[in-house]
Amino acid sequence: MSVYTAPLRDMLFTMKEVGGLEAICAQPGHEETTPDLVEAILQEAAHYAAGVLDSLNRTGDVQGARWHDGEVTPADGFREAWSSFCENGWIGMPASTEWGGQGLPTLVSTAVLEMWKSSNLAFSLCQMLTLGAVEAIAHHGSEALKQRFLEPMVAGRWTGTMNLTEPQAGSDLAALRSRAVPEGDHYRISGNKIFITWGEHDMTENIVHLVLARLPDAPPGVKGISLFLCPKFLVNDDGSLGERNDLACTSIEHKLGIHGSPTASMTFGDNGGAIGYLVGEPHQGLACMFTMMNHARLNVGLEGVGVSERAYQHARAYALERVQGKPALAGSSTIAGHPDVRRMLMDMKARTEAMRALAYFCAGQMDRVAGHPDAQERAQAQALVGLLTPVVKGWCTDSAQGITSDGLQIHGGMGYIEETGAAQYFRDARITTIYEGTTGIQANDLIGRKLAREGGRTLKGLLTRIDSDARQLMDARDPELSSIGDALMRAVRALEDGADWQLAHSDAQPQDCAAGAVPFLRLAGTVIGGWLSARMAEAATAQLAADSSDAGFLRAKRITASHYATHILVEASALRDIVVHGAASTLALSDDQL
Amino acid sequence: MSVYTAPLRDMLFTMKEVGGLEAICAQPGHEETTPDLVEAILQEAAHYAAGVLDSLNRTGDVQGARWHDGEVTPADGFREAWSSFCENGWIGMPASTEWGGQGLPTLVSTAVLEMWKSSNLAFSLCQMLTLGAVEAIAHHGSEALKQRFLEPMVAGRWTGTMNLTEPQAGSDLAALRSRAVPEGDHYRISGNKIFITWGEHDMTENIVHLVLARLPDAPPGVKGISLFLCPKFLVNDDGSLGERNDLACTSIEHKLGIHGSPTASMTFGDNGGAIGYLVGEPHQGLACMFTMMNHARLNVGLEGVGVSERAYQHARAYALERVQGKPALAGSSTIAGHPDVRRMLMDMKARTEAMRALAYFCAGQMDRVAGHPDAQERAQAQALVGLLTPVVKGWCTDSAQGITSDGLQIHGGMGYIEETGAAQYFRDARITTIYEGTTGIQANDLIGRKLAREGGRTLKGLLTRIDSDARQLMDARDPELSSIGDALMRAVRALEDGADWQLAHSDAQPQDCAAGAVPFLRLAGTVIGGWLSARMAEAATAQLAADSSDAGFLRAKRITASHYATHILVEASALRDIVVHGAASTLALSDDQL
Repeated sequence: MSVYTAPLRDMLFTMKEVGGLEAICAQPGHEETTPDLVEAILQEAAHYAAGVLDSLNRTGDVQGARWHDGEVTPADGFREAWSSFCENGWIGMPASTEWGGQGLPTLVSTAVLEMWKSSNLAFSLCQMLTLGAVEAIAHHGSEALKQRFLEPMVAGRWTGTMNLTEPQAGSDLAALRSRAVPEGDHYRISGNKIFITWGEHDMTENIVHLVLARLPDAPPGVKGISLFLCPKFLVNDDGSLGERNDLACTSIEHKLGIHGSPTASMTFGDNGGAIGYLVGEPHQGLACMFTMMNHARLNVGLEGVGVSERAYQHARAYALERVQGKPALAGSSTIAGHPDVRRMLMDMKARTEAMRALAYFCAGQMDRVAGHPDAQERAQAQALVGLLTPVVKGWCTDSAQGITSDGLQIHGGMGYIEETGAAQYFRDARITTIYEGTTGIQANDLIGRKLAREGGRTLKGLLTRIDSDARQLMDARDPELSSIGDALMRAVRALEDGADWQLAHSDAQPQDCAAGAVPFLRLAGTVIGGWLSARMAEAATAQLAADSSDAGFLRAKRITASHYATHILVEASALRDIVVHGAASTLALSDDQL
Repeated sequence: MSVYTAPLRDMLFTMKEVGGLEAICAQPGHEETTPDLVEAILQEAAHYAAGVLDSLNRTGDVQGARWHDGEVTPADGFREAWSSFCENGWIGMPASTEWGGQGLPTLVSTAVLEMWKSSNLAFSLCQMLTLGAVEAIAHHGSEALKQRFLEPMVAGRWTGTMNLTEPQAGSDLAALRSRAVPEGDHYRISGNKIFITWGEHDMTENIVHLVLARLPDAPPGVKGISLFLCPKFLVNDDGSLGERNDLACTSIEHKLGIHGSPTASMTFGDNGGAIGYLVGEPHQGLACMFTMMNHARLNVGLEGVGVSERAYQHARAYALERVQGKPALAGSSTIAGHPDVRRMLMDMKARTEAMRALAYFCAGQMDRVAGHPDAQERAQAQALVGLLTPVVKGWCTDSAQGITSDGLQIHGGMGYIEETGAAQYFRDARITTIYEGTTGIQANDLIGRKLAREGGRTLKGLLTRIDSDARQLMDARDPELSSIGDALMRAVRALEDGADWQLAHSDAQPQDCAAGAVPFLRLAGTVIGGWLSARMAEAATAQLAADSSDAGFLRAKRITASHYATHILVEASALRDIVVHGAASTLALSDDQL
């Protein structure tokens, strides 16, 4: 089995060249976040990820979390890992200093989160949900709720969850039935929730559930949903724990992957109603939940990056060790010298690095939103974050499917044997296109709220930047960069065509637009990822000219971008064709002709 | 859970319009195989597949085969199913009448085999391996071996296996170490084999292992490998079973999927050597094994078709039942009315039907090889079978990955829950691109032995046919057919470019050719599948004009072909670009830059 090694060199390069690390560190509030400090944090995190989380990853998969009589026991070692994770301050790292977090730039915490996701996806979910809940409470909760709940959550003494789904209400939250009845300063919550990640466990003394439910006077549909905080144990005024609340975990799911993460079915109010506290305004629960969801969507996109990186490392280690046949490539004695194995490794590498670049670019924009001194810059960054959120979530997780599959393929027959470990990444990755909104839902968000609603303004602005960068690359006297520029220029035209078509048909033919929504999302991800990949090649070229001490890495960045251009950007024109010409056949059959 | 329903209408249509059923039935020896008989056989098989095999599929997955002290117990019900499978005559159906089989055309047995693969992939492997062993013995075995072993195997009283792989020798059989020492009229075999499908079980009284091993005077490499028959129990002259042979199953693998099929590690000769009989000439084992392998490769390609069909049916059933949100499509009340769900269903359907067409086309060519009266026609058909074998194996299984993944995606969160069943097809499908030669190995066979060695003659002949059919479609006064023709014409040009590039560089730049081998195989499958899809649209159009009694099905064939043209054929140009321009970046990094 390979050991996870955080790709620090690529992470730092990407943070700097794509994420805009230096400018972010110069923003007010981040003066103490020096490049040296960032590197030190990343090194510490890399050490923790490799030493603790990665070594528990297979235990989590094999043992899984175990349910017994309403209690859930995580896999061996998870409880101790959670303690050390919190003691070392990793849990609250991305959170605000106001509640005990470290208040680091999102760009920095994103790189650290990627490591958790690479080394132990199942474990990392507990942090993600907890921090999502923290954010929802911090933004929408009353002062009393904040005072009572945030500090223990940011310290990791209590964890958080997100109770949305009900059996009849998955993607369609309008169908929610859980109810909340007012009773003094609180509410009584009743209903059944499913798919609750880390909904029950014994790693901490309390669990803070955020629950969507309807008030008695609620209008139907999504406008009648409110958000409630229901702790597993009630909390006394002095912060000590009181009675057990009326909620229980009735079972956990038997899933394809992320076995280490318990997916709970929860019942609220079997004995009169769970005590819950309103978060935000009545009937505004969806807006509150979206605070959590947007955060979670970017995080799940990052899961696509993390699990892809880990699958790549696992396959690379095997390919550089396994001897089989006569490798065609000079200097290779292992299967990494077989051109087709090399092709898969390069595809994995090129895609993963572009996905990382997209996720870090978006994280950097979030830092600009949070702290750029200029209001117009903040607004532009906010629009970009909005546009890119579904692309990060949808494209990075969609791409992770093929990447983890290639990782398994490189192992040949051994890849199909569970003990090899490649299959776990393949299974774990498979949830990422589904939870926190399927790829279809991300794509509808992209073509609707993020494209059509604003007449394509933000995307068009981005296309102009890509176009100008492509032109600059084409004009370079460097044949490799110039070829990348050519490929990028063709691809950006394809994205422009696709966007124009979507914009032209959004009013009159919404089904046709929706039929091409996922191909359009893939097109956007492919082209924007290719742009960032090309920018990294350009930056590597400039660095090489200035100082060749890191030539191996920098030349590899150029070649990797070239690989992206020749193997992945070329897909753009087919995706454009599907967006533009694909709707008729997609929608023509009647149900009984399927 | 959905129940498997064999797609009889599409199978019969494809057999007739693509496989050339009528001409094959008119060949000498098949006079009794009337269309009515064929339909009756398919209906019987469909009934058996749905009633027995499909209902055991999940049991096989959940229980798996269990190893205890050298014995392997299949999942509950498998033993009884094997008995009824054999009693009903299904086991020997594709085999020659000489040994008790039914001697049906390969085209007919292919459709039946597809049903076994759809309904229970793990179970179907036992038949596949048994019939492969039968074929190798029938072609290469001595008269005595044939007399002793074939009849019980064709009757399913004994099963067969294929013992190739050793821990150090997977794709590279040259590295085999198992040994065979002559002793009178037999040999003593010793060595360790892994990944032996159905290598041990208690469903039958005997198991006939075909084993690759080296004679003492063997030259090194693949030219020193011989094939031996080693029965689990020795067979007396009167056909009764004698002593247990010196071979044992030491364990079975814990796999990602096909849990119902035991994958055995075997040890031969722990107590002096297993008694084995030479099959074929000394040192010619690889050629003998290839008889079995080519058969198995087409069968594994058919697994790609079968599991895709099953995943499609499962997803379709869910999509037509699950209510969630407001469907955009008029007339739909379920998620099948959401355009993106519809897109995934159509992609699955269009790809699966084209894959079926390719597999049946190849099966039809095998029947021409076996029985066409004209020698030149037989030779042409043989060349086509050779060319298409790696494409059927490589492309149908590669496509099955995305299809089964889409099937899971359509289920949303439920797809990730094992009880839903969609995940099993996804896991089961994952082996098909690996065993019987990985996609990389198929692709090397395609560009080397099947393309370069004959200067591209057979492929060029096929391209001429596709070109002419595309032209005819373009000239049709039917806009839908004409559009399909346009798309096919562009795609066939892309395949021609790719083939020309491969041919031009095969001598001087073999690594560059190998770097593009899998993209070239995908290109070939995509275009040839698109050709057959287009031919089906044309045939459906002609039938519609003559008789509209089956209009719903026939119109769906046209629309499905149109979907293939607009969503899948469009990938051809990107694949061509990868073949032609992709090698440099693929091969440029050194091992330590990966």
